[in-house]
Amino acid sequence: MKPVRVGICGLGTVGSGSFSILRKNAEEITRRVGRSIEIVQVGARRDNPAIDTSKANVTRDIFDVANNPEIDILIELIGGTTVAKELVLTAIKNGKHVVTANKALIAEHGNEIFEKAQEKGVMVAFEAAVAGGIPIIKTVREGLSANRIDWLAGIINGTGNFILSEMSEKGRAFNDVLAEAQALGYAEADPTFDVEGIDAAHKLTILASIAFGIPLQFERVYTEGISKITEEDVSFSDQLGYNIKHLGIARRTDKGIELRVHPTLISKKQLLANVNDVMNAVMVKGDAVGPTLTYGAGAGALATGSSVIADVIDVARTLTADPYNRVPHLAFQPNALSDLQVLDMDDVECGFFLNMMIQDKAGVLANITEILSINGISIESLIQREQEENDLVPLVVMTHSVKEKNMNMAITGIEALPDVVGKVQRIRVETLI
Amino acid sequence: MKPVRVGICGLGTVGSGSFSILRKNAEEITRRVGRSIEIVQVGARRDNPAIDTSKANVTRDIFDVANNPEIDILIELIGGTTVAKELVLTAIKNGKHVVTANKALIAEHGNEIFEKAQEKGVMVAFEAAVAGGIPIIKTVREGLSANRIDWLAGIINGTGNFILSEMSEKGRAFNDVLAEAQALGYAEADPTFDVEGIDAAHKLTILASIAFGIPLQFERVYTEGISKITEEDVSFSDQLGYNIKHLGIARRTDKGIELRVHPTLISKKQLLANVNDVMNAVMVKGDAVGPTLTYGAGAGALATGSSVIADVIDVARTLTADPYNRVPHLAFQPNALSDLQVLDMDDVECGFFLNMMIQDKAGVLANITEILSINGISIESLIQREQEENDLVPLVVMTHSVKEKNMNMAITGIEALPDVVGKVQRIRVETLI
Repeated sequence: MKPVRVGICGLGTVGSGSFSILRKNAEEITRRVGRSIEIVQVGARRDNPAIDTSKANVTRDIFDVANNPEIDILIELIGGTTVAKELVLTAIKNGKHVVTANKALIAEHGNEIFEKAQEKGVMVAFEAAVAGGIPIIKTVREGLSANRIDWLAGIINGTGNFILSEMSEKGRAFNDVLAEAQALGYAEADPTFDVEGIDAAHKLTILASIAFGIPLQFERVYTEGISKITEEDVSFSDQLGYNIKHLGIARRTDKGIELRVHPTLISKKQLLANVNDVMNAVMVKGDAVGPTLTYGAGAGALATGSSVIADVIDVARTLTADPYNRVPHLAFQPNALSDLQVLDMDDVECGFFLNMMIQDKAGVLANITEILSINGISIESLIQREQEENDLVPLVVMTHSVKEKNMNMAITGIEALPDVVGKVQRIRVETLI
Repeated sequence: MKPVRVGICGLGTVGSGSFSILRKNAEEITRRVGRSIEIVQVGARRDNPAIDTSKANVTRDIFDVANNPEIDILIELIGGTTVAKELVLTAIKNGKHVVTANKALIAEHGNEIFEKAQEKGVMVAFEAAVAGGIPIIKTVREGLSANRIDWLAGIINGTGNFILSEMSEKGRAFNDVLAEAQALGYAEADPTFDVEGIDAAHKLTILASIAFGIPLQFERVYTEGISKITEEDVSFSDQLGYNIKHLGIARRTDKGIELRVHPTLISKKQLLANVNDVMNAVMVKGDAVGPTLTYGAGAGALATGSSVIADVIDVARTLTADPYNRVPHLAFQPNALSDLQVLDMDDVECGFFLNMMIQDKAGVLANITEILSINGISIESLIQREQEENDLVPLVVMTHSVKEKNMNMAITGIEALPDVVGKVQRIRVETLI
């Protein structure tokens, strides 16, 4: 059979990884696909010294690739949501299939992009957009396609997980580890995307759509970062048998879909609590299969390139297939997407870990537990520590499951107590069963 | 589009689970596939009281299903390798696609079955044959298709894992837990298939083929069961920071492919060491993606049914596809299978855990370490316990990596020493990195 002809746009980390895999594993890939995959053109504003593109047809104008009639599949690895969107839409308009690792593009503009792709009968594949090398899109969309998905929960940002793992294993402070992560190249100079959960929210948006058959709704994701997690939070959680992880969680409830990214206490007995360093893992609970977990490298040139090239192979195999018989972009047929609403965060139910400083006086604890009780919150466990300084002692409370709005009211009440000093730290708790 | 018409043969555990999923999740599945999946006929020697087949067209002769011209896909869930083989070959001859959960059939007769399927241009899908509900076939064959797979290692028998987990967590004896597993219905009355590793060897055979592109070679798998693992082995391993798991391991080396099922010590820091009870998990190491792990229920009606129906959906999507553009049965094109040989067990290299009883006398330890040294075996750590009874003390040795044949010679030498009493227990150790 004729070679599959691809064009790569972008030669950054993922671009160079994808290029290297196609070169290095060319023989292995041809043995699988039954035809070779040929890099017809590369579009990049500058060369990448990590790879040898001397034998490649390199152009400085990425739109040359989108307009090149010799190309079947355009691989978009330039990132961002403006030029990348124009590039992808141009490729689609020209009847090319697209493979992308761009989570922001898919989460924010996927609905429009998939609609255009559908009209032109082309595929837009995006395995590399979520959890790097882990084939989680394929797992949810195809591997678990017999299931009604109940929920999913994932560690889907490697930088955040590296920071929390270091804090937990070595008792280090957030800012200290963040500085190291930046020095190691894990975190960007502006770490907001990673540590404030925006990157995870992009990925969660995509996972939730393919799990529940809902349109992509990035703007509806509740997003809370890890920058306020303290060494004390980590240490108290540890004593209670929990690790703190930055999770993206999507859950189907009778009242709507929960979509949220926030620090979360999970029992150390869970495999997910033991996923450390820059690794990613996603749990998916289906009604037939029960809980599953998929683990692997969530970032890096070759790991993410692994997903990019797997998508290229997938698309290559469907080049001759009837477009109506392909796996739909969002797992469900476009005309069968659900109109299930995203649940307001106020109505989401969770257990909570509360950590606060109180005056070491009679009656304080009674006042706090009364406020919790008034708001319908029952206590699972409570740790009151020895006095530390100035008559202040830390108080840690673990609660049973309760609606967010009740907890908000309780915290407002507790913070207004004269013997509670400063803010109440609140971290959600998940059982994941 | 027209419904996809399936026939189910066998209404045991997996048959009833698959039937239930198709009924219960019919709407969800139709939303995904864009067409409904209709159970046209069911073939079973007897009814299953767990499910209501009153509205199904049930026949007592399963070959009615294989010969029914109204059926597109035959689902083989009768098990065994004689009638099942005839049934599957009949369905193929009649131009039907086949979905099966039958690991023995695929491992022992897959080469022949796939060849016939190839000739007729039909698919034979077998996700449910390995690790129940975990989509590990799809993960290796498609999700990681850009990789040269270096090795894989899995807990792929739930009964065995339940027994080892109970021994480890509760200090129980093998026979005691086996009896409970039989009472709970996890283990068969004849537990040989599970505890002696034959079931795992069937699954490993299949995984190795799709990972490395080699023909199915069940007869070449080295297979060792868990029935000789003692409470002492478990307890000493635990003290050294290891859990004992019954692993199926396939590894690519310069000299050939390792294919082996045996009890294995793995560090408790590995996620795989913390997969307990009846759960399954498979690690796959690809050259691009690095180590990955996939975890979930390895057995059970609904979990295994989840994989059966996912396969039905996959096959339904390729009904109109060019047969030459499908994912090949064994991941690699039939004409591109490798002739890499399976490595003789004598030439496999591993670390070892040795557990033996010795006389508490001067010179015994020197004799043992000398024999190890003569055979090129270096010691990583050594535990000599307090005297127990009759001047006998247990000695535990952990070795660095060494060829199996060297270890065999060393053990023969050690067992011949007058001060070593009884057999030397030997369990392999894997680092999995």
